[in-house]
Amino acid sequence: MKTMVSLDEASGLMSETCHVTGIENIALMEALHRVLARDILAAENVPPFDRSPFDGYAMRAADLASASAEQPVTLSVIEEVPAGKIPERTVNPGQAAKIMTGSPIPPGADCVVKFERVSADGTHVTVPAPFQSGLNIIPAGEDIERGTVAAKKGTAIDPALIGLLASLGIAEIPVYVRPDVAILSTGDEIVSICADLPPGKIRNCNAYALGGALRAIGAVPVLLGIVRDEAEAIGSAIMEGLRDADMVITTGGVSVGDFDLVRDALQQIEADVLFWRVRAKPGSSVLAARKHGKMILCLSGSPGAAMVSFQLLAAPYIRRMSGRIRWRNEEIDVAIKEGFKKPSPRKRLVRGRLLIEEGRAVMAVTENQGNGVLSSFAGTNLLGVIPEGSGPVPPGTRIKAYVTQDVR
Amino acid sequence: MKTMVSLDEASGLMSETCHVTGIENIALMEALHRVLARDILAAENVPPFDRSPFDGYAMRAADLASASAEQPVTLSVIEEVPAGKIPERTVNPGQAAKIMTGSPIPPGADCVVKFERVSADGTHVTVPAPFQSGLNIIPAGEDIERGTVAAKKGTAIDPALIGLLASLGIAEIPVYVRPDVAILSTGDEIVSICADLPPGKIRNCNAYALGGALRAIGAVPVLLGIVRDEAEAIGSAIMEGLRDADMVITTGGVSVGDFDLVRDALQQIEADVLFWRVRAKPGSSVLAARKHGKMILCLSGSPGAAMVSFQLLAAPYIRRMSGRIRWRNEEIDVAIKEGFKKPSPRKRLVRGRLLIEEGRAVMAVTENQGNGVLSSFAGTNLLGVIPEGSGPVPPGTRIKAYVTQDVR
Repeated sequence: MKTMVSLDEASGLMSETCHVTGIENIALMEALHRVLARDILAAENVPPFDRSPFDGYAMRAADLASASAEQPVTLSVIEEVPAGKIPERTVNPGQAAKIMTGSPIPPGADCVVKFERVSADGTHVTVPAPFQSGLNIIPAGEDIERGTVAAKKGTAIDPALIGLLASLGIAEIPVYVRPDVAILSTGDEIVSICADLPPGKIRNCNAYALGGALRAIGAVPVLLGIVRDEAEAIGSAIMEGLRDADMVITTGGVSVGDFDLVRDALQQIEADVLFWRVRAKPGSSVLAARKHGKMILCLSGSPGAAMVSFQLLAAPYIRRMSGRIRWRNEEIDVAIKEGFKKPSPRKRLVRGRLLIEEGRAVMAVTENQGNGVLSSFAGTNLLGVIPEGSGPVPPGTRIKAYVTQDVR
Repeated sequence: MKTMVSLDEASGLMSETCHVTGIENIALMEALHRVLARDILAAENVPPFDRSPFDGYAMRAADLASASAEQPVTLSVIEEVPAGKIPERTVNPGQAAKIMTGSPIPPGADCVVKFERVSADGTHVTVPAPFQSGLNIIPAGEDIERGTVAAKKGTAIDPALIGLLASLGIAEIPVYVRPDVAILSTGDEIVSICADLPPGKIRNCNAYALGGALRAIGAVPVLLGIVRDEAEAIGSAIMEGLRDADMVITTGGVSVGDFDLVRDALQQIEADVLFWRVRAKPGSSVLAARKHGKMILCLSGSPGAAMVSFQLLAAPYIRRMSGRIRWRNEEIDVAIKEGFKKPSPRKRLVRGRLLIEEGRAVMAVTENQGNGVLSSFAGTNLLGVIPEGSGPVPPGTRIKAYVTQDVR
């Protein structure tokens, strides 16, 4: 068993056991934030035909070469093409067709002149200037060209992509199944959130914070409840989770003092421990193990530490299981607004929010960064990284930060 | 009817008719991204008692004043307090209690010394240095203090807030009902996405792009389908939408050439038109009207223009209806990476993605910014603003941009 590994090493060890979930077909309208499970090739052009972006007259640019205010050119109007109708006639020399926004360009015509640039009666249109070929014609395939990849496998689907797929007539799409992730809370001190709080006990907030964090990245939390500090009970609850879910996350029982318990539980179920403890704070107490090709990630019972480990180790892993191309936490450079007073003998992760101030990326660190504290995570979207061995960090120092809201 | 108003004026006119939806109670685990409908006061401290962050011995700092490596102090261990158990005895002078991570501090003790700093046998602990009062004691209420506001009305709920509410024992919370927004597509050229595509027709992609965009901000799309270009049919479909939904969004029929149709429809149902057309591109063709105290927002039939108007006018309005405190589109300063070549006689909105490059906020503008184009919206989260009357914008120019992904 490796111990005190770096965060990168921990991620690397976990990623050796990462399967992508299965594929299911869903209705396009239900596809927001799901992950596309194959490339979508455009079978047709969008828009499907050359069309007009304005109301006007479709004509032949060659007819207009000599047109001027003094000697305008007059063309005969051969038909009117409203949007949704197909032109029935070809525009020949000396002719024009009245055309509406979105209408197909009639054969023969090669430009559209807006209403306000011409004068017209019911049968004729008079043009006082030359216009160039191609003017005001939106070519077929302007948005998506037939034969191109309209959307890539592994993309998280956003509203515009839903619209694009609709414009290709794709009413159902293949997406990766959302991974089921079981959550198990361990500890004699933990009680259900619905129960009264006896002295010395605390409520099972971890299962809720993690459940929300799982939903936020598109996974499905499966609540296994609370188990007492008994190796056998922990082991069999983990086995139950492994049977039904793609991954098991536990909280509690991984700090130096009480590690024996989780170790015994993992031994009893014959899981392979990949590592225990990482060189980072908070979140040093974390263990990953493997059983039946599935990941068991054991987080600290301290809510703040559990959230840090979740964002740095669990979230990228789960996005990868979900088939996402962009599964890593995005890294950005930010200036730490207020600085950070405590020295950091070990790599430190600080919670905060990204602000853009006068074009610069700034991280506003929240107060109260303790292991046990959840409130300082609320409303944040960054984990700033203060390197191992740093002294106090002065305000405005540039640091690296991970973006912890979902990467789309 | 006001016409060619500014975007701010348009928003202002709409906001005069904005009701917040009703309130419902939901299970905490279902609360992600919902909007809290009242302030949550902490009825208790979190954590509920002073506790130890480490495994160690709880003792009295006064006993240790004279301790040194040469003359260590030895205390008798009166009990062991595992996490989840309450201390049964008071620590008196000369005494200590063995204590585990998360255990309540026994009465009488005022500091905790880690295991690794002492030597101990079953009954005694020997301390080789003085330690200060308060050391390694996490005070009750470190995370949330009793009597404070733990969460504010109008906050969009994130995973950490779910955890916080769980730690307060709140299993059900009041949230604003998601607004129902009806979507109506108008136009003789529009066909269902499931149908074959006859010549001259295009598919109803707007309903899907807008449906996704509504879901992304927490609203519920109600699809009214497609109506032909007939004022009476449009009017009665809008009335149907108003009956069941909190707001109606239509697409098509608001450009200069075909405005008569929607105007007639709105006259027939006796809606008050607030404005028609705004001074911005794309998305100048947009109309807002009011009927029975509900908003009818009529967007362009061009998908790109409809998306711009949705983000700038509909999204803030709907977030406000949803009870959100932060309902406005966040505005940031960005450097436009590639510049923008075309001049902008009118205020121009360009689509792109926020990048942080060497600590600076940069906007990568996507290709193909046409009114009819959706593909250039996919994967973007900004609408950059090029001011009215601008010439070509050189690369690196600082501009204002609206954040179009959901503001949390």
